[in-house]
Amino acid sequence: MTQVVRAAAALADKVEGWKRSGMRVGVVPTMGALHDGHLSLLRTARRHCDRVIVTIFVNPLQFDRADDLEKYPRDEARDLALLEAERADVLFAPGVGDVYPDGFSTRVSVAGISEELEGAFRPGHFDGMTTVVTKILGMAQAGWAFFGEKDWQQLQIVRRLVTDLNLPVRVTGCPTVREPDGLALSSRNARLTPEARRIAPALYQVMQQTAQGLRAGRDPVRELDDARSRLIEEGFASLDYLELRHAETLRPLADPADPARLLAAAWLGGVRLIDNIAI
Amino acid sequence: MTQVVRAAAALADKVEGWKRSGMRVGVVPTMGALHDGHLSLLRTARRHCDRVIVTIFVNPLQFDRADDLEKYPRDEARDLALLEAERADVLFAPGVGDVYPDGFSTRVSVAGISEELEGAFRPGHFDGMTTVVTKILGMAQAGWAFFGEKDWQQLQIVRRLVTDLNLPVRVTGCPTVREPDGLALSSRNARLTPEARRIAPALYQVMQQTAQGLRAGRDPVRELDDARSRLIEEGFASLDYLELRHAETLRPLADPADPARLLAAAWLGGVRLIDNIAI
Repeated sequence: MTQVVRAAAALADKVEGWKRSGMRVGVVPTMGALHDGHLSLLRTARRHCDRVIVTIFVNPLQFDRADDLEKYPRDEARDLALLEAERADVLFAPGVGDVYPDGFSTRVSVAGISEELEGAFRPGHFDGMTTVVTKILGMAQAGWAFFGEKDWQQLQIVRRLVTDLNLPVRVTGCPTVREPDGLALSSRNARLTPEARRIAPALYQVMQQTAQGLRAGRDPVRELDDARSRLIEEGFASLDYLELRHAETLRPLADPADPARLLAAAWLGGVRLIDNIAI
Repeated sequence: MTQVVRAAAALADKVEGWKRSGMRVGVVPTMGALHDGHLSLLRTARRHCDRVIVTIFVNPLQFDRADDLEKYPRDEARDLALLEAERADVLFAPGVGDVYPDGFSTRVSVAGISEELEGAFRPGHFDGMTTVVTKILGMAQAGWAFFGEKDWQQLQIVRRLVTDLNLPVRVTGCPTVREPDGLALSSRNARLTPEARRIAPALYQVMQQTAQGLRAGRDPVRELDDARSRLIEEGFASLDYLELRHAETLRPLADPADPARLLAAAWLGGVRLIDNIAI
């Protein structure tokens, strides 16, 4: 049975007990609206750990747009049923007032990597994310934490944060889960109209073709320009970015021998989709 | 015997072993140049905990002036001898490159309280302090941490930080230790000339008189103005501040019933002295 916990103190007691009996504790931080991508994180966590906490907290601090926060899907009963089926031990779902009580004043920020790509288009997003992730890791006191590669930049920032602040947790990234047609699972996909949903897989398809061209040694500037044009032709309204970057620092690729990642954010029918793949 | 540890990983192993055997672990973060104020923190820690780590790290991030960083006294052999005599279990003394390796990018900042008093006169000081304290607490993984009331504002900021980031540590503040003439112990006192050293105790004396006046209900504006004039008459070169503040938020005292603290920073012979007392 998945136990629902709302108070940080109750979670701390539970985790302390588990750790005292030598158990490995893992945490999967989410914003709810769970889909198979989240559940794959949970399954990976279950393989590594004796006890798994899934957290659900729609963090107002990391939404740059009020309408996006308001429209973000929430259905705790449905989420809980999914967690029960996958045998999560705890659903930790604190309220906003518990996470940010009166007087809350602290921010955790990661310079450099947070300012690239998503950071340039969603001001404050990553500072909100790093602050709440630090808090969730503090509350959960788990030795293992699981994040999806779907949010690649977030994953790299969390790794940087955990290293920089010496947080006693091992961060594991888990591969993006996709629909059969290649669309990366995302809670925001539910907002796509049928017409937009039909177009959406083109993002991954074009990225795959571009990745093949890049791996074959073709000129990145031209490949990326072509890819951007193709996405607009396919029906995307606009692109925030489609870029080839250093896979860890997210900076422009200085040396072709460095690990590289192709990352994109594109608008389709009022919904912002992101995706990324290895080169 | 006090064991000297330089690597965070070695410290983590040691602490994990202690905690597994059910021991209480305490940490006393310092910048070295240990005096009886630091040793009183250590003694308090020993009363609360089974094992005590004293950290020595002169944190470049929290010095707003390069000359202050350069002149900050360092004598690890002498510090170690004092820690041996007081039976500290570990002296954790990492190098600057271990604490801030290449690529380090994270900052922890506490808004509001960090901008008052010291924050206004030492730009960036508290962001550097909160960042390194978060790191030291992460490295030490101690359940108890001990800070001196001498740095009252720092203590309040650390309390805020620990609450806000849900860090699993109890923060204990320890009373200021003073010379027989009332001068608060400080590593910077060593820089006072004999003439300045003779004048220095006037800071505490004037603050005590002012506190008596305030407790007796006299007008704060007038009492504080008188105190400032008296300090200049006594031979202080200038005051950065002498203020009555809310004891926890450090904001100007809105309600006379709120907990209050009198805090001062004053220059004497090129040395900056700080002190504070309860009202």
